[in-house]
Amino acid sequence: MRVAVMTAPGQVHVEDRPDPQIIEPTDAIIRLSATCICGSDLWPYRGVEKLEGPQPMGHEYADIVEEVGAAVTTVRPGQFVVGSFFASDNTCEICRAGYHSSCIHREGVSGAQGQYMRVPLADGTLLATPEVPSGDLIPGFLAASDVLGTGWFAAVAAQAGPGKTVAVVGDGAVGLCGVLAARQLGAERIIAMSRHEARQRLAREFGATDIVTERGEEGVTRIKDLTGGLGAHSVIEAVGTQESMMQAIGSTRPGGHVGYVGVTHDVQLPGMGLFFSHVHLHGGPAPVRRFLPELMRLIGERHIDPGKVFDLALPLDQAADGYRAMDERRAIKVLLHP
Amino acid sequence: MRVAVMTAPGQVHVEDRPDPQIIEPTDAIIRLSATCICGSDLWPYRGVEKLEGPQPMGHEYADIVEEVGAAVTTVRPGQFVVGSFFASDNTCEICRAGYHSSCIHREGVSGAQGQYMRVPLADGTLLATPEVPSGDLIPGFLAASDVLGTGWFAAVAAQAGPGKTVAVVGDGAVGLCGVLAARQLGAERIIAMSRHEARQRLAREFGATDIVTERGEEGVTRIKDLTGGLGAHSVIEAVGTQESMMQAIGSTRPGGHVGYVGVTHDVQLPGMGLFFSHVHLHGGPAPVRRFLPELMRLIGERHIDPGKVFDLALPLDQAADGYRAMDERRAIKVLLHP
Repeated sequence: MRVAVMTAPGQVHVEDRPDPQIIEPTDAIIRLSATCICGSDLWPYRGVEKLEGPQPMGHEYADIVEEVGAAVTTVRPGQFVVGSFFASDNTCEICRAGYHSSCIHREGVSGAQGQYMRVPLADGTLLATPEVPSGDLIPGFLAASDVLGTGWFAAVAAQAGPGKTVAVVGDGAVGLCGVLAARQLGAERIIAMSRHEARQRLAREFGATDIVTERGEEGVTRIKDLTGGLGAHSVIEAVGTQESMMQAIGSTRPGGHVGYVGVTHDVQLPGMGLFFSHVHLHGGPAPVRRFLPELMRLIGERHIDPGKVFDLALPLDQAADGYRAMDERRAIKVLLHP
Repeated sequence: MRVAVMTAPGQVHVEDRPDPQIIEPTDAIIRLSATCICGSDLWPYRGVEKLEGPQPMGHEYADIVEEVGAAVTTVRPGQFVVGSFFASDNTCEICRAGYHSSCIHREGVSGAQGQYMRVPLADGTLLATPEVPSGDLIPGFLAASDVLGTGWFAAVAAQAGPGKTVAVVGDGAVGLCGVLAARQLGAERIIAMSRHEARQRLAREFGATDIVTERGEEGVTRIKDLTGGLGAHSVIEAVGTQESMMQAIGSTRPGGHVGYVGVTHDVQLPGMGLFFSHVHLHGGPAPVRRFLPELMRLIGERHIDPGKVFDLALPLDQAADGYRAMDERRAIKVLLHP
């Protein structure tokens, strides 16, 4: 099969590799007609995260089950399923508490930017739609696999809801999905922080009521100006840098909630600043599986269309162009067709 | 009046100063028959926190109102009242959300280790008992002013409650009050981390079910061993060092809650460690005023006796001996009689 492989920072190509096989009886094989590039794929692309040799890329997937292992009981070949970047058993105490991405049996997945992929712990990881959805819904389901699930977790962690003012730091696909989630969760006011016109437009479409273009200390001041000097009740952090984390914490009122999902590379949170900020801080790798039943229903019934985050579609063989477009912020999120 | 003054690290003496006066019409003057030394007073005593010149010490108080300003309506001379280390208006949006210690009008108080003190924003800050309590209850009410209120906030921030396993990092008066709070809030199992026999004994008396003497990485391993490898649901952090914060975060299961109230001096939280820990982190200066109605009722009705944290009582003039005893961990908490 064809699969995108990263060999070094900035170096992605598509090569032939053997089709994945069932290894454990709990595995499933998925056939992919659409896949995508994630903002987090840019960390190794930019050399911030170290590569351990050539790496088949991709961890977002929503497509047709090709084959299942002997122990798999909840999904069967031919079904359309969605899973997420950590396989989970969905039965351990941590999963039952809603933290599937810290499942005691969790396994990372990779190689979703290809024609087929192996998904471990298929019963716990995959959720099937009632029927195979029409093709125009596939980008939405693909978004549910990571960026929507992650933005949704951030909004829940930030306790976005009725009567709340929510600020969103980060205008990538996750931040934009955070806007959509805050709207669905009933937030009263949603302030998207973005200086990029196309992203501002999508933020408004997803439910943002205000746009703030300032960032860092100036961004914090602007959020305080918009909230009677107090700060937002809920802040979604979807970048993962020192500046963005401090911007998120500084934009939150005492007693408010920061939901952070940007992978926090090279971040050190100063104890005293955090102490006196009085915020609640929660985040980490999103337990997307917790939210899939609700998200897949909302997408299948066309209540939400998170697939709008895909603003560039390319054949899989042009994956390298897709990485470049995202790295240069020419595309919000790139869909790849194997 | 006589008041304890810190002039340099390790240097405390008691001197004569003019009696405090009403300055603002919202002030009250309190006459103190008992006062105390706080663990946080040890930060400047040990030179970790910088002193800006000679500093009248003390911020814990529970005693008789001597005089009130013209605008004060909720307390009157002769009443027994309890207040806390930040004066607050109890009416702003932040106070109404329960974060009095971040009140938009907050003011620090000082000089409680003396015969009289001025309390700003008396209506918002002070709460009176139905009648003047008998003398044996005064240590309990004095504890409510800070260490009990702070331990209680930590337990609430850590979401201690029925069915939960709670671990407590720190065996000072605040940590011990955290144990008491966790018990009152209905926690199933309470693990006190202490290697000090007298403190272990009081921890058990306050409701601890287990004692762990290991600390740092070994302490984390021990907590995991006691919780099926997962970590505690709720962890109270009542120290404020890098080691204790990392011990608290490491002892918490994914999705669990850390309530931290040790003032985080020289602490830097590593972003990646925090991200993948999946914990909820909340804390800061305790909004003691939020909890006073409930705590004062529990003390007045003799349901709890947090006054047991005082294991040394001295005349105010021997304040220096009291500081030494706490610094050398010979006393858990020192009561001073002016």
